[in-house]
Amino acid sequence: MNANIEMTADAVPLSELVRRGELLSADCPSREVLKHVTSRWGVLVLMVLLDEQMCRFSDLRRKVDGVSEKMLAQTLQWLAADGFVVRTSYDVVPPHVDYRLTPLGEEVARQVSSLADWIEINLARIMGARASSQGAGESI
Amino acid sequence: MNANIEMTADAVPLSELVRRGELLSADCPSREVLKHVTSRWGVLVLMVLLDEQMCRFSDLRRKVDGVSEKMLAQTLQWLAADGFVVRTSYDVVPPHVDYRLTPLGEEVARQVSSLADWIEINLARIMGARASSQGAGESI
Repeated sequence: MNANIEMTADAVPLSELVRRGELLSADCPSREVLKHVTSRWGVLVLMVLLDEQMCRFSDLRRKVDGVSEKMLAQTLQWLAADGFVVRTSYDVVPPHVDYRLTPLGEEVARQVSSLADWIEINLARIMGARASSQGAGESI
Repeated sequence: MNANIEMTADAVPLSELVRRGELLSADCPSREVLKHVTSRWGVLVLMVLLDEQMCRFSDLRRKVDGVSEKMLAQTLQWLAADGFVVRTSYDVVPPHVDYRLTPLGEEVARQVSSLADWIEINLARIMGARASSQGAGESI
């Protein structure tokens, strides 16, 4: 009845079992989550939703430059299945659907945005290192 | 002569120009960096190198469960070209090559590891949300 997604960390002591080593293990389900969150468009969709709080599909498509309709739909489906994004459809004419982060999604979006911020802020250093490595990097 | 990669953030004021909006722009070079860092194996290689400080190719291959030789080589090449990883080859018999993070690479590896840690610690919550969303998520 209630579409709210309950986060009951206490109920499942699995988190106690999941350690760093597990993400390095090919069959740990965390690999799949990492794949969704760090997918080409996943990072950018999470960033936008964290900034905007709530977006329509067309807003997201406009903001995430270069994403196709199909890939955006796929990305949102992944993020919804992992409990990071909620899709709300309003029964009005014309139909209205919006997307927002769940509390769990906000947490992961903050992690991802922190990485994205780091890349943006340090892009000049990275481009400088790239220029150097083209001269010397591969011959070390 | 000197293969050390110099990080001269001061020299290039580009970082002042690169803001959040740029990563959302399809032609910003930060997109490429994000792709390398968040690639399927990039995240895991950075995690391992942050933990281990220094690794041989075969160590990395053993620790990052499931990676092929080809994909590991490709990932290391990307990370070296971006100035995150240094490959050092020792002129001994048998040949000895190791990989370690640059100071820039350590910074990005910390960001990536923070995301990876979050996923591992919260896997139980995510799996719980997944189970709920299979029942209700897509019909909201």
